[in-house]
Amino acid sequence: MNYKIENIKQLLVSKPLNLDCGLIIKDFPLAYETYGELNKEKNNAILIFHALTGDQFASGINPITKREGWWDTAVGANKAIDTKKYFVICANVLGGCMGSFGPKEINKKNKEPYGLNFPVITIKDMVKAQEALLDHFEIKKLLCALGGSMGGMQLLQFCASFPDRTFSAVPIACSSSHSAQNIALNELARQAIMADPNWNKGDYVKNDSSPKNGLAVARMAGHISYLSESGLQEKFGRKLQEKADYEFSFNADFQVESYLRHQGYSFVDRFDANSYLYITRAMDYFDLSKQYKEGLTEAFRDQKTKFLVISFSSDWLYPTKHSKDIVIALNASGANVAFSEIKTDKGHDSFLVNEPKFLMTIKNFIDSCYEAYKK
Amino acid sequence: MNYKIENIKQLLVSKPLNLDCGLIIKDFPLAYETYGELNKEKNNAILIFHALTGDQFASGINPITKREGWWDTAVGANKAIDTKKYFVICANVLGGCMGSFGPKEINKKNKEPYGLNFPVITIKDMVKAQEALLDHFEIKKLLCALGGSMGGMQLLQFCASFPDRTFSAVPIACSSSHSAQNIALNELARQAIMADPNWNKGDYVKNDSSPKNGLAVARMAGHISYLSESGLQEKFGRKLQEKADYEFSFNADFQVESYLRHQGYSFVDRFDANSYLYITRAMDYFDLSKQYKEGLTEAFRDQKTKFLVISFSSDWLYPTKHSKDIVIALNASGANVAFSEIKTDKGHDSFLVNEPKFLMTIKNFIDSCYEAYKK
Repeated sequence: MNYKIENIKQLLVSKPLNLDCGLIIKDFPLAYETYGELNKEKNNAILIFHALTGDQFASGINPITKREGWWDTAVGANKAIDTKKYFVICANVLGGCMGSFGPKEINKKNKEPYGLNFPVITIKDMVKAQEALLDHFEIKKLLCALGGSMGGMQLLQFCASFPDRTFSAVPIACSSSHSAQNIALNELARQAIMADPNWNKGDYVKNDSSPKNGLAVARMAGHISYLSESGLQEKFGRKLQEKADYEFSFNADFQVESYLRHQGYSFVDRFDANSYLYITRAMDYFDLSKQYKEGLTEAFRDQKTKFLVISFSSDWLYPTKHSKDIVIALNASGANVAFSEIKTDKGHDSFLVNEPKFLMTIKNFIDSCYEAYKK
Repeated sequence: MNYKIENIKQLLVSKPLNLDCGLIIKDFPLAYETYGELNKEKNNAILIFHALTGDQFASGINPITKREGWWDTAVGANKAIDTKKYFVICANVLGGCMGSFGPKEINKKNKEPYGLNFPVITIKDMVKAQEALLDHFEIKKLLCALGGSMGGMQLLQFCASFPDRTFSAVPIACSSSHSAQNIALNELARQAIMADPNWNKGDYVKNDSSPKNGLAVARMAGHISYLSESGLQEKFGRKLQEKADYEFSFNADFQVESYLRHQGYSFVDRFDANSYLYITRAMDYFDLSKQYKEGLTEAFRDQKTKFLVISFSSDWLYPTKHSKDIVIALNASGANVAFSEIKTDKGHDSFLVNEPKFLMTIKNFIDSCYEAYKK
């Protein structure tokens, strides 16, 4: 999507970043947004990690899309993550397409968009890039860091890589290791994008073209996985789309078809197809236990961070079992960890919608952490 | 796929068939295959309904693809459906692409392939077409009819539409009504096909072209839904495809990626993309209860057929709840019904693979029905 760069705050990360793939990047832009005020003790800062298709605009109106920020249900004045009390930072991930260094950026060497010449990045690379923001704001230790879905994966990596940089952490509806089904769903999305002739092996930006059909199909697959069977049934069932009976055609007869088409094709205007490839790849490569000889328990060794792990009962993308595995490892590491499975039929998307029990849980956790941290 | 028509048995259905869409078809071909011998009492006949991508070649080697028939695990000499004892009939569904009347057939009026001019068909239309086979073989009443997935949906429709034509029935891993999630997954597949420029609004056969990429993506989505999360994890987990570590590329690093690509691209040589559209549409339109004022209970009123309903514990495409709803309606109708949920982690595909408890269950059911029917 085209946007005015003046709507985007960017930090130029000058410190060289050793990527997992072996390359080194430096002097790259990291786009971010902040909400609320950092107090003078600098002990009220909260970092939010976004999910696959999110960006830095968590709260209020996204100045680019003119739609609500992706976590406006949770972040704002008097909301669960109260921006009157806390200073909230959210960055667009490395590999993203909302102002951070990603595949649609121009390669200074040849003046062309990177496309597939962009390095394959990992969740760890994303997290290392975002640490620079803490240095930028001179925040020694965050009050809290939160993330759902891929945001939760970044958070687990952040805690493992930088054990002293947050007082508390809330990984939500995530996994410490992408399962075969998770990888399969992402590969389906990638194949849909790469099957589109407009993808052109990733080289489409300079042609002012993009694989919109393929990206829309990828997004539709995503949306099916974000909802639960019972949630879909309750929301749509077999309701028809503004017609009394079957049309005996391939138009959208059912509301659920119309919903999917809308979700798919409204997405392509705000998201870069190559970013979708790179970010899903980073998710698939994520296996925190693989980074440590003794696995997940070692990843969390000597954690001082206070954890609250949250899952949703109807989430089939990252089922509760994934969260329980994290809790087991944290407990085995002697960490301070609470766990809550929220009963809901809203599926994986539960953390993005108005789910009162969930919002109350994170609000009270953060507030009580603040009382403890201030002391 | 191109095949020699001499490998295909076809019945020319001359009786006019009133399609649900309002059109009438007649003198159309219905391709079928038989296994075993019909005895002189004509009381050993079994009809098998195939699933979305199946065909008439249930047993032995498929003469077209040269691969094993889709239900060779269950159908054959001394197998669960014993072709030494029983006469097994299986037809390619109306709308299919293995010799039955479908969208790739030539319209005699304009000498062009039907493409999207083929009428939108329903499960009921498929079943009415297949009834002609019973008349052809002069079988008054089948010993048994079986079907898994869409085959089970055809079977439920068959029992409701023709309550006197089978002594027993085994609907497997199916539903009496496609759920919103079922419709969503089919719509995803259709969108993948229609997004492929080679689909050309269904008009590709005469160009000797086909939307292979779109159809492959559709098939990949299907395969994810046919397996369970635990089944995928056990089979593939995070195993790499003939490499020691991540390649940091978009090649198939993981075995599950390689598996999906293979399943997708090997499918396109044997299946017609328009058939995929028409058959998934028929599935989505299927809602047996909608055909009867008093719903499913009325659909099964005065059934003399002996039912065995089977589901699989890890099937998330047609979860056990769908089967239980069928059992509840059958019981409410006073029908003779047994129900078995087979515990397995093989997901929806369980009925196609070697699942001993399942195979033993159908074998003993059919054999005991034969003893009762012979009397």
